[in-house]
Amino acid sequence: MEIQKKHIAILGSTGSIGKQTLEIIAAFPEYFVVEVLTANKNADLLIEQALKYKPGSVVIAGKEHYPKIEKALWSRGIKVFAGKDSLEQILESDTIDIVLNALVGFSGFLPTCSAIKNGKAVALANKESLVVGGALIKEMQRTHKSRIIPVDSEHSAILQCLIGEELNPVKKVILTASGGPFRNYTQGSLKTVTPEQALQHPKWNMGKKITIDSATMMNKGFEVIEAKWLFDLQADQIEVIIHPQSIIHSMVQFGDGALKAQLGLPDMKTAIQYALFFPLRMKSESREFHFAEHAELTFEPPDLKIFRNLALAYEAMNEGGNIPCAMNAANEIAVEAFLNKKIGFLEISGIIEKCIKKINKTAHPTLDDYISTNQEARKLAWSYL
Amino acid sequence: MEIQKKHIAILGSTGSIGKQTLEIIAAFPEYFVVEVLTANKNADLLIEQALKYKPGSVVIAGKEHYPKIEKALWSRGIKVFAGKDSLEQILESDTIDIVLNALVGFSGFLPTCSAIKNGKAVALANKESLVVGGALIKEMQRTHKSRIIPVDSEHSAILQCLIGEELNPVKKVILTASGGPFRNYTQGSLKTVTPEQALQHPKWNMGKKITIDSATMMNKGFEVIEAKWLFDLQADQIEVIIHPQSIIHSMVQFGDGALKAQLGLPDMKTAIQYALFFPLRMKSESREFHFAEHAELTFEPPDLKIFRNLALAYEAMNEGGNIPCAMNAANEIAVEAFLNKKIGFLEISGIIEKCIKKINKTAHPTLDDYISTNQEARKLAWSYL
Repeated sequence: MEIQKKHIAILGSTGSIGKQTLEIIAAFPEYFVVEVLTANKNADLLIEQALKYKPGSVVIAGKEHYPKIEKALWSRGIKVFAGKDSLEQILESDTIDIVLNALVGFSGFLPTCSAIKNGKAVALANKESLVVGGALIKEMQRTHKSRIIPVDSEHSAILQCLIGEELNPVKKVILTASGGPFRNYTQGSLKTVTPEQALQHPKWNMGKKITIDSATMMNKGFEVIEAKWLFDLQADQIEVIIHPQSIIHSMVQFGDGALKAQLGLPDMKTAIQYALFFPLRMKSESREFHFAEHAELTFEPPDLKIFRNLALAYEAMNEGGNIPCAMNAANEIAVEAFLNKKIGFLEISGIIEKCIKKINKTAHPTLDDYISTNQEARKLAWSYL
Repeated sequence: MEIQKKHIAILGSTGSIGKQTLEIIAAFPEYFVVEVLTANKNADLLIEQALKYKPGSVVIAGKEHYPKIEKALWSRGIKVFAGKDSLEQILESDTIDIVLNALVGFSGFLPTCSAIKNGKAVALANKESLVVGGALIKEMQRTHKSRIIPVDSEHSAILQCLIGEELNPVKKVILTASGGPFRNYTQGSLKTVTPEQALQHPKWNMGKKITIDSATMMNKGFEVIEAKWLFDLQADQIEVIIHPQSIIHSMVQFGDGALKAQLGLPDMKTAIQYALFFPLRMKSESREFHFAEHAELTFEPPDLKIFRNLALAYEAMNEGGNIPCAMNAANEIAVEAFLNKKIGFLEISGIIEKCIKKINKTAHPTLDDYISTNQEARKLAWSYL
């Protein structure tokens, strides 16, 4: 099978997923043309990446960095844009086939919508896109026939297990969770944990926001909602299980009772590479998995009383409408406040819960409704700090 | 997708796999027409099955049982045949679509060949068919475009993991093994184990021959060779790992390092049902798998010094030609001798080893060569008892 060259836009190229994506592209230069790189505020790395990968354009969200980047890149024929609106506009370009969205939080939602409305394939690392507006995104997908390929290792695992099973209904999916750094902590001991402790994830090396979300299990809650939309599931078809070794990345159970799992070392690169070449698997230089080093895999149920965020995510999913969007917004504010030591670890859930109780409900939100819910919920969350 | 009615012949219908196959057919009567049932010597059960499932014909291998069966079935319009030759002949019938071969040992080889030469799909539980003459069977398969679908839970697991991955080369397969009842035994303690102990398999409820083969790990050696032919693999692409809980039924690793596994309770019915409806999965009434009951999965390398048969299987596979056929024949004699308490457990390997060293080698055996190797090796094995 001949592989067509992919023209790619990488949103969030200076973050953890973005950097790994560029490493994969560097390993397979013959299959990619980098069209767009974007960063939030890391101007120096964006310049360095642009000089190496020669995209047609770069976008920096923080406008204050524009002059520096423009100065560095103008002579190379690389167009420089600034501001979040540019991000959405640039995805209208006909030269882009695939958008890897590795933005963090709500900021990834509108670019996902833009990519889908413009018929691009989306390799989705920004799980918040589907958490915020899964119903709307699915509707856009149907209209514009765009494809979403998950980059999250859990959803990548599920996709890998579903390949070739198109005729067979799914009984349930089982999302595995490492349990994070506080797996065996009691309510009492969680009261005093610091951001520094929360940032020590035992298995996955990721950005700050998602590492805290992993520690609170909000991340797993987001993944539950993401799975619902990606694989068209009901709440009772999505189970979460704690698997501290993070070797089994997730599982699918079919109607005949058989389960399929995808496993390997915890390494985001395999999932990113799979999304980029889907459904092909290319060789990888990743470290080899050996059972000799992983002789024991264990499983335990999550403690929903201690990790309230996971329970809240199921509640928000069941309520639907704009509630998951409000939950996400409240979580963003609460996590930031925790990182800035304004609130304790256990207060994160409390703020989220208050926000989703208080927010004005909309059953069938439009794009504008999501934007205003996001703003409203952030304000609410601020008011509870 | 409309499911076509399958006209099925079940070879060995009174054995463990045969009985479970008929239970599945009883659960899905609308999808099957039972054309043929065959048994070795259990005349009573064959009669009972024939009265219930109303096949066009039955075959009893032991000719002495013919009169009794004929008497019971003649008035029902069910034809009765006797003798092993009838078994091969009956598979020429145009009315049969699929042959489930659950015969034990070398006796399954010629019927598999006959089914394939007659263009039938073969649901293969008789792994010895491919151990004895994998090269010849593959050649026949190519000529006659017949399909083999594995019934062994390990190979079924591999097939399930390979579905949809047709474009992606396999790096290796990992066959899991429970380790059998003597997993942690030393050479010394194995000397005195009895057939009764060997027949206590910790995880799988199977026939006598295969249960002893599991205890010696000959069964896993057979499965290695079976995997080679089913999935077109080299020796270094087939790994065996001890997994005492028997929850992961086997795994496949692809070129990108990702592994896929199929898992569930140890239950042959899932694998049989998968083979019968492949690639569809039908609902199953099997007991549900819960991680709460299987919170720990462990893995360890097999001890090839103690379980010599597994090492011998790799050696025989690498030698090729008629050597695996000789190994199988010697094993059949040795297992019988062990069950009859003529030899000890550890002597089984010794007899096999002597036979495959001594047998006249043929690099490219014909069907007749396999038949004579089988006879010659059995005689040799007898001479070593």
